[in-house]
Amino acid sequence: MDPGSRITGFGVIETRGGGYQYIASGCITARGETLAERLRSLFRGMEEVVGEYTPAVMAVERVFVQRNVDSALKLGQARGAVICAGALQPLAVHEYTPAEIKKAIVGKGNADKAQIQHMAKVLLNLRGALSADAADALACALCHAHLARSLERMSRCRQTMTAGPQ
Amino acid sequence: MDPGSRITGFGVIETRGGGYQYIASGCITARGETLAERLRSLFRGMEEVVGEYTPAVMAVERVFVQRNVDSALKLGQARGAVICAGALQPLAVHEYTPAEIKKAIVGKGNADKAQIQHMAKVLLNLRGALSADAADALACALCHAHLARSLERMSRCRQTMTAGPQ
Repeated sequence: MDPGSRITGFGVIETRGGGYQYIASGCITARGETLAERLRSLFRGMEEVVGEYTPAVMAVERVFVQRNVDSALKLGQARGAVICAGALQPLAVHEYTPAEIKKAIVGKGNADKAQIQHMAKVLLNLRGALSADAADALACALCHAHLARSLERMSRCRQTMTAGPQ
Repeated sequence: MDPGSRITGFGVIETRGGGYQYIASGCITARGETLAERLRSLFRGMEEVVGEYTPAVMAVERVFVQRNVDSALKLGQARGAVICAGALQPLAVHEYTPAEIKKAIVGKGNADKAQIQHMAKVLLNLRGALSADAADALACALCHAHLARSLERMSRCRQTMTAGPQ
């Protein structure tokens, strides 16, 4: 998930065997005149996505750099709404920094956005156009899936070592 | 309501005749190891308050000045969670700046915090101790009730003028 104060990108993937399968992606747009209406629409939109695809976990891009405190506050409000929509299910919510996502997808923490979006499409075998927000969200999901798989392998490796020749 | 990233103060009042009646106040503390747990606990806490006292509207203190973008983001996330808890009921959510609250309660926009908290207690005829967060939340509720009453009076006055001598 890649939350923004007006648009939140989402991407749903499934881990299958050694690869990843694209399930869905898109954008939830905050609609409404008031802040409360906009936050409610983000919450409801994410609730619908979670209800439709019943993911096992939620991965969210962690953000640091904001132009100013006002935009940081607005982004925080949107994050609060969409993270709540997942956390209330309750889904486990994992956060990844842009550098962690870049490292997991491209292998280096300073890859540019276009490269990330390109690799997300390659890894999911997608050919059509993807919005930047949806691609970022898919990259975040891939980052989680990749790290979760690595952790699982390490854990299996440790178990094998423990149960190994004595 | 006075949302903070760790503690959100709340205050519930009722307008009766020409005055205001204190109903309840307190603090909701964000608990949990992860961001998602903390946001969920804020949401659930506010949902409980709204469920127990079934208010007609929600008034939230609007904030501007934050030390840095990181604290603005954290405060935004908390605001997103607690505003959602009201907006999903659905309650109408009104926001008031600190200056609007000060003006409504003390009559001047540059009153200090202690004065606001003192006046909130006087207006609600409270004698016991109140936490600063709860007092700020009650002041915000009083501000809304006061402005809503003024608007209602103005509207009645306009109706009387329209229906007056011709």
